Amino acid sequence: MLKRRTDLAVEAEALTKTAQTGRGPEGVRIQEEVREGCPVTRVEILDDRGEAALGRPVGTYVTVDLSGLARREEGAFPRSCTALAGELGHLLRRCRVPEKAPILVVGLGNRAITPDAVGPGAADHTLVTRHLIDAAPEQFGSFRPVAALAAGVLGTTGVESGELAQAVAGKVKPGCVLAVDALAARSLERICTTVQLSDTGIVPGSGVGNHRFALNAESLGVPVIALGVPTVVDGATLALDILEEAGRDDLDPAALRGAGGDLMVTPRDIDQRVKDMAKVIGFAIDLALHPHLTVEDVELFLS
Amino acid sequence: MLKRRTDLAVEAEALTKTAQTGRGPEGVRIQEEVREGCPVTRVEILDDRGEAALGRPVGTYVTVDLSGLARREEGAFPRSCTALAGELGHLLRRCRVPEKAPILVVGLGNRAITPDAVGPGAADHTLVTRHLIDAAPEQFGSFRPVAALAAGVLGTTGVESGELAQAVAGKVKPGCVLAVDALAARSLERICTTVQLSDTGIVPGSGVGNHRFALNAESLGVPVIALGVPTVVDGATLALDILEEAGRDDLDPAALRGAGGDLMVTPRDIDQRVKDMAKVIGFAIDLALHPHLTVEDVELFLS
Amino acid sequence: MLKRRTDLAVEAEALTKTAQTGRGPEGVRIQEEVREGCPVTRVEILDDRGEAALGRPVGTYVTVDLSGLARREEGAFPRSCTALAGELGHLLRRCRVPEKAPILVVGLGNRAITPDAVGPGAADHTLVTRHLIDAAPEQFGSFRPVAALAAGVLGTTGVESGELAQAVAGKVKPGCVLAVDALAARSLERICTTVQLSDTGIVPGSGVGNHRFALNAESLGVPVIALGVPTVVDGATLALDILEEAGRDDLDPAALRGAGGDLMVTPRDIDQRVKDMAKVIGFAIDLALHPHLTVEDVELFLS
Amino acid sequence: MLKRRTDLAVEAEALTKTAQTGRGPEGVRIQEEVREGCPVTRVEILDDRGEAALGRPVGTYVTVDLSGLARREEGAFPRSCTALAGELGHLLRRCRVPEKAPILVVGLGNRAITPDAVGPGAADHTLVTRHLIDAAPEQFGSFRPVAALAAGVLGTTGVESGELAQAVAGKVKPGCVLAVDALAARSLERICTTVQLSDTGIVPGSGVGNHRFALNAESLGVPVIALGVPTVVDGATLALDILEEAGRDDLDPAALRGAGGDLMVTPRDIDQRVKDMAKVIGFAIDLALHPHLTVEDVELFLS
Repeated sequence: MLKRRTDLAVEAEALTKTAQTGRGPEGVRIQEEVREGCPVTRVEILDDRGEAALGRPVGTYVTVDLSGLARREEGAFPRSCTALAGELGHLLRRCRVPEKAPILVVGLGNRAITPDAVGPGAADHTLVTRHLIDAAPEQFGSFRPVAALAAGVLGTTGVESGELAQAVAGKVKPGCVLAVDALAARSLERICTTVQLSDTGIVPGSGVGNHRFALNAESLGVPVIALGVPTVVDGATLALDILEEAGRDDLDPAALRGAGGDLMVTPRDIDQRVKDMAKVIGFAIDLALHPHLTVEDVELFLS
Repeated sequence: MLKRRTDLAVEAEALTKTAQTGRGPEGVRIQEEVREGCPVTRVEILDDRGEAALGRPVGTYVTVDLSGLARREEGAFPRSCTALAGELGHLLRRCRVPEKAPILVVGLGNRAITPDAVGPGAADHTLVTRHLIDAAPEQFGSFRPVAALAAGVLGTTGVESGELAQAVAGKVKPGCVLAVDALAARSLERICTTVQLSDTGIVPGSGVGNHRFALNAESLGVPVIALGVPTVVDGATLALDILEEAGRDDLDPAALRGAGGDLMVTPRDIDQRVKDMAKVIGFAIDLALHPHLTVEDVELFLS
Repeated sequence: MLKRRTDLAVEAEALTKTAQTGRGPEGVRIQEEVREGCPVTRVEILDDRGEAALGRPVGTYVTVDLSGLARREEGAFPRSCTALAGELGHLLRRCRVPEKAPILVVGLGNRAITPDAVGPGAADHTLVTRHLIDAAPEQFGSFRPVAALAAGVLGTTGVESGELAQAVAGKVKPGCVLAVDALAARSLERICTTVQLSDTGIVPGSGVGNHRFALNAESLGVPVIALGVPTVVDGATLALDILEEAGRDDLDPAALRGAGGDLMVTPRDIDQRVKDMAKVIGFAIDLALHPHLTVEDVELFLS
Repeated sequence: MLKRRTDLAVEAEALTKTAQTGRGPEGVRIQEEVREGCPVTRVEILDDRGEAALGRPVGTYVTVDLSGLARREEGAFPRSCTALAGELGHLLRRCRVPEKAPILVVGLGNRAITPDAVGPGAADHTLVTRHLIDAAPEQFGSFRPVAALAAGVLGTTGVESGELAQAVAGKVKPGCVLAVDALAARSLERICTTVQLSDTGIVPGSGVGNHRFALNAESLGVPVIALGVPTVVDGATLALDILEEAGRDDLDPAALRGAGGDLMVTPRDIDQRVKDMAKVIGFAIDLALHPHLTVEDVELFLS
């Protein structure tokens, strides 16, 4: 039997119902705020009851709504970067990552598959400083050491992204790993308009590529903050939702036009949207890790 | 109100019903055959009645089923190339294109958008000879002159693909234009498993990019043979089909989960499939235009 | 016998000697200036005597020295763009191109060969507006129509860049063509630090790819302004110069270590330098064609 | 004072003189052979005297001349692959690498710089099997586990290629590392026509990128076989050679036209040549590691 799928905590069914009834599940705290014009929702899963209700491990899941960027609102790019950087900085402090500790940014996903390319794209926009600090300490000595890894594709390396990240973390010895990934969402409106930050890292089975590994404090030995962007809706999930709304939730979409298969649903302009989100996430990481820089500084450094 | 959409003649509703009732529409002739193990369907629209029934202009629409390639059957690649080349050669003769007349291959679509990249990809696999014949007549004098154009993106040139093709055809003065394009299909099973060849050229509103121009004998002054590969199912079409099968064809999917919007549905491995189809079409064109070459020869020339 | 080669008018031997003797050749006017901190040299070939002395057709050849950019001087990027845009605007007015006439930008050269990629790269940074003006006249009606063409590679299209430019110009009907190209220089110091603007267009035998065609007012029917960047020194030219300085100008470098062959000499960091120059030229074109825009506006439009 | 530079053992001055005098240096053994029509030279440095004479560590340096490939001789591609694979197999056995031991292929160099892209290109043509053996043991169980790493660019990761290779080797636990790299040669004729195989690994200061690290048995704990292709001649080296032949070896080329700077000399068609060599090396690795495969099998697996 096909199941609905989402990688976003805010889309968990227990929370959708909350929104309707006005009463949240036990063991879950929800907080809403607007930051730089971007709506922010913080879902905290506090204990076993919260885990059971939301089907996710204890931790913080922050959703930042960047739909203003997709609508090309005035000033949306710097505001989005700043809002995301603020939330990321908050999580770094909560994870007690020392201010100048080295950071490893891991861009998960396959660059050759458009909706899976947001991780490698964000890594491209990351200001990499680790090698500069040794080479030119007088000029870069005040920077925090940052390394980046576009984890690439299992099929072209024979090494799983999780193994690769673990291997590089062993060299870089970061105080924290930031893992950027493409996610599946349930709602079409969230595609490339939302970023989810979470201090629980990457869970097996999540992401557009359905990762086989965990990338978290347990596997890497340091805190892992995941930054995820929904870029697809799973075909079967969409079909189930349509059938439910049509009052036919007794039907299995797999039996209908093959709609239960291994399909993904994306907007037509997915290519440009993925590029935009990769840039905004890369820049937000840069601003959070180097708080003395502005968006203009980052543009200059990366050109 | 949302409509179903398909660029494949074999998916016209009038034909689907035919298959069920055993009686075809007037003014349409259908012929089936297996070529090199690949099922071939030839739909000929003979007159006004056929046009009205199938909603397409008079002409020949040949569908070659290459699903053996997707299943990685033994020898599927050379068989697919040979089958396609055979059908293309047949159409060239029907269009009375002289045997050594120059040919212009136009790869339509946007290389940066995976499901729209089949045209540019096929152009990459086209054996371009026009410049060689002048430069080294003793070596290439026996080849047919072939030019290729990956028509690129309106947004990066400011020139529509149709205009560009027209401009280049004015220089190359081809005896025939071959236009390769990505299509929308109704059936998920046909995605990247089928090629449609047609002597009617490209119709406005067709293709993944919804072309605004016609590329046909009228606009170009020479026969235009279109080679199309379905790479997406339109989101609204799939939703309508699911609702119909669920007995709710009274509902508008646009009202349900936004499923009527500007969405496309693709298989997860669309990237590899599009590459495979681009190669098979490029090679089939090479074999049809240079009948003295083998698949191995083409591999060698293109490497 | 090997010959020295340069595509820069300022490097013509007659001028080099001028610099030493203080007396210029007849029929040539030279003017020097500093613009936005960038040294500018304007060489005007006035008549037959000038043509004979400099081995180039009558016309204006403006060299802008952007070496501040390579040295990463503060503010060098916007200053370089503004200086170049100023000189380009000046040439456009001299060629009497009407202010709102459509412009066709042609990026010559082969994107896959690093030192030949400056033309296609500049086309990528060109603000293409022609298609927008029709599509959204209320928003873009005040813009000048600009189309761009990365003329690509003979070997992959079978159509020479000159033919292609001619074909597209026939559609766009521009008031002027801007042709961006990579050049060969004699001096290593000029590699990727200099831009030559000229109202004489592109001459056969020039450029890194040794064009076989002319792209000028005669072949295109409208003024052609060439913007060229030296990216290589011809191997034989450098060898001849070394031998001359060593007092052995009686020797043929072709006989020495094969140094006369089809070689090119480039700096190690040619890749980054070509990217920088492509961006500066693209931006300068944008500023010259749309004088109401700033460098920041262009950044925003192109992202 | 500028020095001549070459990464090829056969170009060591001590050996060039040998060729003239007919007497080799002490502690060096030289053997010549023709394999599949390709001339092969094996230089063995046996002891301290050999090290001193050739300025390289004790070990075997095999040069395979593939100039037939550049001349597009009939059958040159499969013959070149087979000849290289034979020499590589020979070195693997000499290093006592067990027949089914995992292998890590490291493609050194920067993909974005044409003459430095041969390593990453060869990695692209490597048949990666490590992940398949676990996933589908019945189908791939008989294959040797192979992992590949395109070591990328220090500037985009902040992690040196040596560190990265070390980290990944810690996970893959290979029986041997194959390191593919672009080299500097002294002779223009050897550019992209020669491959040097060596059991001494990668030495700091070698390669087009002047590696800062060693990649050898000491740093990685397993044998390292280097496969290097000369793709550039150092500008200063060429200038020194020209001056010597011109009888002016008293001059410093740095004083002449800046020819001593950080320059590289390449053939004009470097781009295609680098692609060809990357493919031949990748295929040779595949044939050597999977002796039951043919060139055709590899084509099929990699397409």
